[in-house]
Amino acid sequence: MKYTVSVTDTATKARVGEIMTDHGKIQTPVFMPVGTAGTVKAVHQRELTQDIGAEIILGNTYHLYLRPGLDILEKAGGLHGFNGWTGPILTDSGGYQVYSLSERRKITEEGVTFHSHIDGSTHTFTPEGVVDIQRSIGADIIMAFDECTPFPCEYTYAKESMDRTHRWLQRCCAHFDHTEGKYGYQQTLFPIVQGSVYPDLRSHSAETIAAAERDGNAIGGLAVGEPAEVMYEMTERVCDILPKNKPRYLMGVGTPANILEAIALGVDMFDCVMPTRNARNGMLFTTEGIINIRNEKWKEDFSSIDATLGGYVSTSYSRAYLRHLILSKEILGAQIASIQNLSLYLWLVRQAREHIQNGSFASWKEKMVRQLMIRL
Amino acid sequence: MKYTVSVTDTATKARVGEIMTDHGKIQTPVFMPVGTAGTVKAVHQRELTQDIGAEIILGNTYHLYLRPGLDILEKAGGLHGFNGWTGPILTDSGGYQVYSLSERRKITEEGVTFHSHIDGSTHTFTPEGVVDIQRSIGADIIMAFDECTPFPCEYTYAKESMDRTHRWLQRCCAHFDHTEGKYGYQQTLFPIVQGSVYPDLRSHSAETIAAAERDGNAIGGLAVGEPAEVMYEMTERVCDILPKNKPRYLMGVGTPANILEAIALGVDMFDCVMPTRNARNGMLFTTEGIINIRNEKWKEDFSSIDATLGGYVSTSYSRAYLRHLILSKEILGAQIASIQNLSLYLWLVRQAREHIQNGSFASWKEKMVRQLMIRL
Repeated sequence: MKYTVSVTDTATKARVGEIMTDHGKIQTPVFMPVGTAGTVKAVHQRELTQDIGAEIILGNTYHLYLRPGLDILEKAGGLHGFNGWTGPILTDSGGYQVYSLSERRKITEEGVTFHSHIDGSTHTFTPEGVVDIQRSIGADIIMAFDECTPFPCEYTYAKESMDRTHRWLQRCCAHFDHTEGKYGYQQTLFPIVQGSVYPDLRSHSAETIAAAERDGNAIGGLAVGEPAEVMYEMTERVCDILPKNKPRYLMGVGTPANILEAIALGVDMFDCVMPTRNARNGMLFTTEGIINIRNEKWKEDFSSIDATLGGYVSTSYSRAYLRHLILSKEILGAQIASIQNLSLYLWLVRQAREHIQNGSFASWKEKMVRQLMIRL
Repeated sequence: MKYTVSVTDTATKARVGEIMTDHGKIQTPVFMPVGTAGTVKAVHQRELTQDIGAEIILGNTYHLYLRPGLDILEKAGGLHGFNGWTGPILTDSGGYQVYSLSERRKITEEGVTFHSHIDGSTHTFTPEGVVDIQRSIGADIIMAFDECTPFPCEYTYAKESMDRTHRWLQRCCAHFDHTEGKYGYQQTLFPIVQGSVYPDLRSHSAETIAAAERDGNAIGGLAVGEPAEVMYEMTERVCDILPKNKPRYLMGVGTPANILEAIALGVDMFDCVMPTRNARNGMLFTTEGIINIRNEKWKEDFSSIDATLGGYVSTSYSRAYLRHLILSKEILGAQIASIQNLSLYLWLVRQAREHIQNGSFASWKEKMVRQLMIRL
């Protein structure tokens, strides 16, 4: 994996760059649609490229490991062969899902034992194991095994957990460096900064993660309920420590405003279920602001969903029609809203890149942060 | 509405024709995807034309009347304006849904009083009322208000019901002829033959319906549980009576084999929820036969869903991937399976037209009836 920064903003710490993978290039800042179980929910693969403009998607290790399972994925030639997505794929480490989805889980130095949310079966994820799993899934970017601490989190536990995550990282790196990809293309490993909302822990973690000298670095354990200001403070602190010549990935973030603020702090990569999950509930992100399409006020609004954004979905369907579909629990409602929201997110990072390139990012960001979060 | 027959098969009663509406032409025999609540479930409008090749879709009067309601549909310029489908639309009369979906309903000479399955509110459908409703929806083809009798059905009730349906037809015709379309294009009214499985009732009803001298005629009350042979017997009897120079529409039919057999009896138009409903349950119609994609045997079948059928969905996704999506209850599974099944149905009628045109319909039909119903 090769990363090059082409432009750095002077007013903020934002930068434009490009990640080259064996499955193609990714222009940064980038938003990565989440394809939990091998599918970005309600979106065809061709829509990801043709309508949304996605350059990389996420897969979830926990979900894919449980279903369809590694045996099938390996026979399919990895997730690329299985779902037909030809661009780069990043997989999470499975840690976050283990903590949030499985019914009972037990963390030890060795790893995490948990019960499947599908059939209750018992499994263990270890740092070495999740590297193997992600090798089998065939991710271009593999995430190190970490513990994502909740918010709030006691200092003592945050430190204990962070130290364990750092020890796990050593095992991940050792195992990654002694194994090879299964499908003939390069894979790379990103370590993850933890440390909850404690500045000293975050700094220490960022230094530890930087010292691992991998191709890119991630910031985890944020956007878990802490105030946005705290998230930005931790992000800035960590970004200032992580090397400039490697992409920085802020995991699980966030709203359009969160993304713009984090870009200004030097973040290059984002993923979040918000655009797709909220879409299915009828919450739309548009260039004019946020729409709860279930509201009575859209009942007779026959204007297109988002004329400024453009594209088939945003201009061919009306707000009134989408409201009808969402209220009627029609699948097409989830389809339309998902494409609208993902298109908006990808438009947002494209616009950010342009404004960084022409030097107008700071003022544009201030305007957009307000505009995009208006409740219409 | 103008209908012309271009070719009539010599070995069977199949024919190829064309219906011209103000929203474009329909080549017959045709299959009409069902768009119950203003959407063919899980399918974008552009996919209906570009991937599936649909030339006309159905809307359900009962559903659309209850939600979004006529007020919104009228303000949108009818269903075409509301959902963006630019081709012809046929709406059913609402009768079938009233009988099958509403919790309590009472049939009188005046019409049917029923309770909404959505909120329990009370409504009355009359022959005049459903013409008005379909005028408001903006259907190109409006169906007369009928009672679809269940199977089995006592002779006495079948006759009583049929006679009432005939009296309702007179009221429908009178009201239709004294009202006008609301959106500047022509609408037409199709009456419906009833009579359950009783040959004398079917003959009498077909004569009555033919005597109404409308632009096209429908056959209702079949495919409600009677043996296929009985359905074919009734269909043939009715087709032989209904005028040759008008399209014949067999309502709610059916499997690919049912459709081919009915084409051979002189039917020109079909609709059925089977391709889309079964798709969502993982039952696929393919050019090679029927696939229950949930079966273990497809688990590691990485071949495309239906290479012979062609098209994006049928060739870009594998059976193993679709199985994973359906088992995981992923929306994309319903999307892919729906497009596959509808594409197969539209391919089937296109193929039928070609074989009627080149004189090979009878032998091709025999082969396909067997092939398409094989359980793979």
